[in-house]
Amino acid sequence: MTKGRLEAFSDGVLAIIITIMVLELKVPEGTSWESLKPILPKFLAYIFSFIYVGIYWNNHHHLFQAVKKVNGSILWANLHLLFWLSLMPVATEWLGTTNFAKNPAAAYGIGLIMCAIAYTILENLIIKNEGENSSIKQAIHSKFKEYISIVFYIAGIATSFFYPYLAIGFYYIVALIWLIPDKRIEKTLKEN
Amino acid sequence: MTKGRLEAFSDGVLAIIITIMVLELKVPEGTSWESLKPILPKFLAYIFSFIYVGIYWNNHHHLFQAVKKVNGSILWANLHLLFWLSLMPVATEWLGTTNFAKNPAAAYGIGLIMCAIAYTILENLIIKNEGENSSIKQAIHSKFKEYISIVFYIAGIATSFFYPYLAIGFYYIVALIWLIPDKRIEKTLKEN
Amino acid sequence: MTKGRLEAFSDGVLAIIITIMVLELKVPEGTSWESLKPILPKFLAYIFSFIYVGIYWNNHHHLFQAVKKVNGSILWANLHLLFWLSLMPVATEWLGTTNFAKNPAAAYGIGLIMCAIAYTILENLIIKNEGENSSIKQAIHSKFKEYISIVFYIAGIATSFFYPYLAIGFYYIVALIWLIPDKRIEKTLKEN
Amino acid sequence: MTKGRLEAFSDGVLAIIITIMVLELKVPEGTSWESLKPILPKFLAYIFSFIYVGIYWNNHHHLFQAVKKVNGSILWANLHLLFWLSLMPVATEWLGTTNFAKNPAAAYGIGLIMCAIAYTILENLIIKNEGENSSIKQAIHSKFKEYISIVFYIAGIATSFFYPYLAIGFYYIVALIWLIPDKRIEKTLKEN
Repeated sequence: MTKGRLEAFSDGVLAIIITIMVLELKVPEGTSWESLKPILPKFLAYIFSFIYVGIYWNNHHHLFQAVKKVNGSILWANLHLLFWLSLMPVATEWLGTTNFAKNPAAAYGIGLIMCAIAYTILENLIIKNEGENSSIKQAIHSKFKEYISIVFYIAGIATSFFYPYLAIGFYYIVALIWLIPDKRIEKTLKEN
Repeated sequence: MTKGRLEAFSDGVLAIIITIMVLELKVPEGTSWESLKPILPKFLAYIFSFIYVGIYWNNHHHLFQAVKKVNGSILWANLHLLFWLSLMPVATEWLGTTNFAKNPAAAYGIGLIMCAIAYTILENLIIKNEGENSSIKQAIHSKFKEYISIVFYIAGIATSFFYPYLAIGFYYIVALIWLIPDKRIEKTLKEN
Repeated sequence: MTKGRLEAFSDGVLAIIITIMVLELKVPEGTSWESLKPILPKFLAYIFSFIYVGIYWNNHHHLFQAVKKVNGSILWANLHLLFWLSLMPVATEWLGTTNFAKNPAAAYGIGLIMCAIAYTILENLIIKNEGENSSIKQAIHSKFKEYISIVFYIAGIATSFFYPYLAIGFYYIVALIWLIPDKRIEKTLKEN
Repeated sequence: MTKGRLEAFSDGVLAIIITIMVLELKVPEGTSWESLKPILPKFLAYIFSFIYVGIYWNNHHHLFQAVKKVNGSILWANLHLLFWLSLMPVATEWLGTTNFAKNPAAAYGIGLIMCAIAYTILENLIIKNEGENSSIKQAIHSKFKEYISIVFYIAGIATSFFYPYLAIGFYYIVALIWLIPDKRIEKTLKEN
């Protein structure tokens, strides 16, 4: 089975997720700059989620560059990842409308951790399908970035009940770790 | 005529259908976990419909892997399938907002049965167009899964007027039957 | 310049247009079948517009099958067509919410006639770009279908102020004329 | 890394941005032509933004025609451009609902200038990645159009606080400058 349609469908879903979040930025009634103030926390939440979905698209892109074949399990693991990503607009809206409150910050972190788990499952199934000597296996021999992300997410969720802004800080650090697309894959692809 | 754009257009429509359903998950007013409670049935309905649209995308993907050429009738049969699938968000919302009531459960089943009929029409037109000796004809020689699905859908619609949750159970069994993508096509494609 | 991205972008826009119309089918408050009644005219309008956008996608698909190269004018003529098609959801909603009233029926017809004009402009620019001896020129030597459509649209708009349902009848006839994708192109492509 | 998915994802996001703006054109309650009047400024704003997003899609298309390879920085520069473009529907709605008021006209101009800056960054990164002798470098040796646009945008933002319609006039002139897709790239591609 070719990977073309899996990529096209994922691109479509990710493009919609990243764009419908903007629909929540309802314009104010007035014409003054002050009237924009209520949508400011929503706007910050939007920027944050835009970067996160961008990171996932970027890494998805890198991951599938190295993929040669897909199977039924990979199709479902990909849909599983898209499911958790599709909840990002809802989590973003809750975070934005409540002005970064405690429970919404925790819920946002839980959403992020589920995306990370889904991505890891997808990665593992792809490596298993490609085989032990594949370039993807060589590229992702160390899973340090994956493990450290989980740790920061758990730290973020734990602190969200006390200092939600600190929780966002933890999620922000994970974003920074992944902002640079997967050099491991780029490097290995170039060598082979 | 090439099948590329039919696949791209279908991917686009399915990606939108699967994602706009999430727009119905309106976030609660409060910040407490209890305030999430009213959207719980909507969330369950969303998961259910996400899986169903995922199944259709998966099988559509498998079906067209084996297709070599398309014609005008196939384009319309495909649009017919997309039409019934496009009603899934509405049926899902009715099911979710009414907390899985009787009529909405029946309406949901009627929607599913129309999708199944539209898919079978598409399958038949493709087999007819590819010819008797095509790999797709060999792959789908038995239509057991299609027939058993129709039976379960009818059972689900019939019981929905008495026990709507049992109806959802019937629809769930059909989902399980199709969750594993069409091994018949995968197998036949590999042999040829 | 290659035509790939023009097709992909058009597929995306058409997929969104055809799907967002369903967002207008707001589910009723109640659980009874009677509570579905208010959305019935909207549903009929949705079916009608779904078929119309389907026809445009189908003919766009056929037209570009025969296209070898595109230029700046064709890109803009295509965006011009997409602009008028993007107004279909608004026209559909007005038609549906007012239960097929006079002015909305006329506005719907004006929308359809603008789409038809935009499509003809696109067709002419493509023929001019492909050259006099191109297969597309041979395929579309007769413009009978285009002319008769304009006549029926004008008849529909004129009658809409007296009998809006008759106007819809006229638009329906044009849909029937175009429902069968452009055999002229299919035939000429096969011969060459 | 191939550019295919970057183009597909950008096409998806741009197709959604251009189409969701139409969701703001809420149909009137009545059936009279007068009842359409309140959505007229929104409609004008929609036309304007449709043309602007069309221009960006067109130039994006032209730019990537000449691109042979992409890297991580280009992926992010592209996402950065899509981010600013994704704010167009919000800016358009504010402009339309306030009937082209002063602050919204300024905000719209700020949005446009951010898109122009993001586009220039993307262009520079692509030229750097393709190399000094690439056809893209030769094509975009003069940046006159980019510089004059920035000047007009600043003029527009400055006047928007006094005469918002004049500001729109300035933005309109920039649109006219870019309406004709990048002949520089088309010409250079043909020569090579």
